[in-house]
Amino acid sequence: MTALDPVLAKIDGNLEAALGRLFDFLRFRSISTDPAYKDECAKAAEWLAAELASIGCGASVRATAGHPMVLANIKAKRPDAPHLLFYGHYDVQPPDPLDLWETPPFEPRIAEAKGGKQIIARGAADDKGQLMTFVEAVRGFTETGGVPCHITFFFEGEEETGSPSLPAFLADNAAELRADLALVCDTGMWDKQTPAITIMLRGLAIEEVAIKAANRDLHSGIFGGAAVNPIHLLAKIIAGLHDSKGRITLPGFYDGVSELPEQIAQQWRGLAPRGSEFLKEVGLSVPAGEEGRGILEMVWSRPSCDVNGIFGGYTGKGSKTVLPAEASAKVSFRLVGAQDPVQIAKSLRAFVKERLPADCHAEFKPLASSPALELPFTSPALTLTRQALRDEWGKEPVLIGCGGSIPVVGDFKRSLGMDSLLIGFGLEDDRMHSPNEKYEFSSFHKGARSWARILNVLAS
Amino acid sequence: MTALDPVLAKIDGNLEAALGRLFDFLRFRSISTDPAYKDECAKAAEWLAAELASIGCGASVRATAGHPMVLANIKAKRPDAPHLLFYGHYDVQPPDPLDLWETPPFEPRIAEAKGGKQIIARGAADDKGQLMTFVEAVRGFTETGGVPCHITFFFEGEEETGSPSLPAFLADNAAELRADLALVCDTGMWDKQTPAITIMLRGLAIEEVAIKAANRDLHSGIFGGAAVNPIHLLAKIIAGLHDSKGRITLPGFYDGVSELPEQIAQQWRGLAPRGSEFLKEVGLSVPAGEEGRGILEMVWSRPSCDVNGIFGGYTGKGSKTVLPAEASAKVSFRLVGAQDPVQIAKSLRAFVKERLPADCHAEFKPLASSPALELPFTSPALTLTRQALRDEWGKEPVLIGCGGSIPVVGDFKRSLGMDSLLIGFGLEDDRMHSPNEKYEFSSFHKGARSWARILNVLAS
Repeated sequence: MTALDPVLAKIDGNLEAALGRLFDFLRFRSISTDPAYKDECAKAAEWLAAELASIGCGASVRATAGHPMVLANIKAKRPDAPHLLFYGHYDVQPPDPLDLWETPPFEPRIAEAKGGKQIIARGAADDKGQLMTFVEAVRGFTETGGVPCHITFFFEGEEETGSPSLPAFLADNAAELRADLALVCDTGMWDKQTPAITIMLRGLAIEEVAIKAANRDLHSGIFGGAAVNPIHLLAKIIAGLHDSKGRITLPGFYDGVSELPEQIAQQWRGLAPRGSEFLKEVGLSVPAGEEGRGILEMVWSRPSCDVNGIFGGYTGKGSKTVLPAEASAKVSFRLVGAQDPVQIAKSLRAFVKERLPADCHAEFKPLASSPALELPFTSPALTLTRQALRDEWGKEPVLIGCGGSIPVVGDFKRSLGMDSLLIGFGLEDDRMHSPNEKYEFSSFHKGARSWARILNVLAS
Repeated sequence: MTALDPVLAKIDGNLEAALGRLFDFLRFRSISTDPAYKDECAKAAEWLAAELASIGCGASVRATAGHPMVLANIKAKRPDAPHLLFYGHYDVQPPDPLDLWETPPFEPRIAEAKGGKQIIARGAADDKGQLMTFVEAVRGFTETGGVPCHITFFFEGEEETGSPSLPAFLADNAAELRADLALVCDTGMWDKQTPAITIMLRGLAIEEVAIKAANRDLHSGIFGGAAVNPIHLLAKIIAGLHDSKGRITLPGFYDGVSELPEQIAQQWRGLAPRGSEFLKEVGLSVPAGEEGRGILEMVWSRPSCDVNGIFGGYTGKGSKTVLPAEASAKVSFRLVGAQDPVQIAKSLRAFVKERLPADCHAEFKPLASSPALELPFTSPALTLTRQALRDEWGKEPVLIGCGGSIPVVGDFKRSLGMDSLLIGFGLEDDRMHSPNEKYEFSSFHKGARSWARILNVLAS
C-alpha cells in the first residue's frame, strides 16, 4: 500500500457526498453574461470559497470590476514541495434555448445512459464538474493527512464573457498567483476511455487588409476594363498565400516551425481514423491543408492561414454595376512553435504591398497577435503526469494539440511566466454551450482520482 | 442655297423664343422618383404634348402604371420618306443637395461662363435641353414647309427610375412605335468643339456565385488548416479569371469579339491623351486591362470582367475567428460584338465547378444577361449622319463606344427590332445628377441645327 491508496479510498468513499456538493454548486444560475444573474454569480463564488475553507484552505472572494474571483491557498507539510496553481471558472453559458432541455438546466440530475451514468445540468462539464474533480482530489488528501504540494486555487466568474477582469487581476496579484506550474482543467479526454494532455496551443496573428484603388466607387460599365478592381487584387493576394501543395508562401513564414517529435507523430498516426471523422461531422471529406500531413497535424502542430472575412463592393440583393474603390479581408494565421506573430504580420504587409500596382495602396489593422504555447515534450512534469494518468485509466494518455487558443494559458505565461499543464475529463459529446449539457459520472469520479495521482507524482 | 438653308435660318431666328420654351419646360419639377411630384410630371408631359401639337403633330399623353408617356407623329409629304423614332425623357433627378445650388434648380437662367453662355437648371442637359434640340429642329422644318421624314416622338417620364413601364408599353404599342431607325439623344459630345456618335454599347452578363463548403461556420482555430475555406476557393477562382496579360481566361470567352475597323482604331489612337485623363480624374494612373490595348478600346470595344461585390465570413468590426461555410461574389462581364451572354454565363459556371474540391459545391444566380449593341460601321445612316455633323461643327465627328448600357437601346432592339443612332450634345462637365446642372448654349443652338441637317440627309 503506497501513500496514495488511502487518498484514493477516501475519494471513492466520498463519492455520494461529492456528487451532492456538485449538485449544490450546479444549482447556482451563475450566468456571467446576463446582468440579471449577478447575484447568482456572487453566491456561487461565496459557496466555492466556503467549500474550500471547509477543506482547510485560506479562502477569499475578491471583488473585480465584473464578477468576483475566488482565491484559496493550502500548504504542504514539506516547505520545499512544489507550488501549483489550479485554474477553473464558476460561471456558465446561458441555458437557451430552454425548450430543448429535457429537464430544467439548473436542477441537476443523474441520467442512466448506454455508456453509464451522466450528470445533466448547465455547467456540468463546463466548468463546474471539471473544477470539482480537483477540489474533491484535494479533499481526499486533507481528510487523510494533508496535501503533498502547495496549492493555490484560482477561480474566475467571467470565462464565458472573455475574462475582461483577468489580465488586470493577474498583474495586481502576481506575487500571490505565481506558482511553479499552472493546472488548467478546461480541456477534454481523447475518448471516454483514453485520457489526454493538451501540450500545444496554436498562436494567432490577424491583420485586416484594405486595398484602396480609385478615389471613389466607379461605374463598372464606364470604367470596367481600364480601371483596376481592388477585389481582383485582393483575390490574387489571397490566392497567392498558399502554394499548390497547401503551404503558406509568406517569406520566412515557417521560421520557428519544427517537426513533431517522432514519438508524438507516431501516436497521432494511430489516432488518424477519428481525426478524419472530425471533418465528416461538418460535412467535409477532403483535408485542405499541406500535402503529406495528417489531419491532426494540420490543426494541432502545423501553422495555417485563413481569411475569416472578406468584403468589397455591392453585397446586397441583386446586382449593382459598381467597380468599388476598395476591398478588405481579415487574414488570420494560426501559429506553432517559435513562430513570431509580429514578424509574420510584417511579412504579410510586405507581401501585399509588393503585389499592388503603383496607383493602389493598402491599409492594415492588427487585430490579434499572440505566439503559440507549448509544454516542452521533455518536461519532467509531463512525464510524471503521463504516468499518473496511465495508472488511473490503464491506457497511455494521448498528447494532443489544440488548434484554438485558451486565453488564460497565454495570460499565465505572459503575466506570470508560468507554464500550464492542460488536463480535463470532458468529452466531445458533452454538449457544452448547448441544451442538456452532461458530464460523465466516470469523468467526475476517475477525474478526481486522476488529480490525486497527479498531485502525488508532482510532489515527488 | 439648298433646301436646308431656310430651316437653319429659321432655327437661328427662333433662338430667343426657343430658349423661352425650354425655360418653361425646365420650370416643371418633374422628379420621377418622388411621389410628391407626380402632378409636376403629368404637367410636364401635358406641356410637351401641347408643344408638339403646336408644331403640327398629332400628340397624346398616354397613361401607364407610373408616369405617362408622350407620343406624337408628324408625316413627311413624301410617303416613302424614312420613318424615324425620336426618344427622350422629361423626368429629372432630384436636385438635392439643394444648398449647393447657386440659384434655385427649377428657376432656369443663363450664366456667362469663360467658354460662353450656359443654361443652368436641373434637367438642362439631362434630358430636357437635349430633347428640345430635336423639337426645335422639327419646328424649323414645319415653319418652312414641312418635315423631310416621317417622325414619331416618344418621351417617357421614368428614365431616372429605371423605366419600369417602358418594356410593357413598347410591347403594347409596337406597331405605332416601330420605325426604320431610332434616334436617342441621351449621350454626349467628345468635347465642346467635337461632335460624337455612339456606335457601340457593351452588353452585360452578371452571375452571383456562392461557394458552399462545411455544413456550418467553423472555428478557425479548431478547424483551420484541415477544413477547406470557401473564401480561399473563391479568391483563387477570381484570380484565375484573368491571365498575366489581362485577358479573360474563360474558355470561348473571346468568341464573337472582332478587332476594331482600322479607321476607328486610328481615330481612337488620336483621342488617347484625353482617354488617359479619364483615369487620372478618379485617382488612377495604370490602365488595368489587356496588355497592348488603348484605354478607349478597353472600355468601349473590348470585353471586361469585374467582380462587383464579394462577401463571406465575418465582415463587422474587429475580428472573429470563423472559418465560414460559404462565400459569394457578383461576377460581371461587359460584352462586345457577337459575344453570347448565355454562353458566357455557362462557361463561368463550368469554370467555377472545375475548381472546387469534391466536398464543396457552387450555387449560381443569373442577375443580368444582355448582348452588346452596335450600329454597323458600314451603315448608310451612319455615313450620312457623320457628314451632317461635320458640316455643322466643321470637325470630323468621333465614333465612340459606351462601356455601360443605355437600356432603352436594348429594348428598342429586342422589342421592335430597331437600331438606334445615339447622338447628343452633352458634355462631361454638365454636372448631370449634380447641383448646378448646365447645358451649353452652343449645344442647344448647334444641337438643333445638327438635327436639322441629320433629318435632311436621312431623308435623301
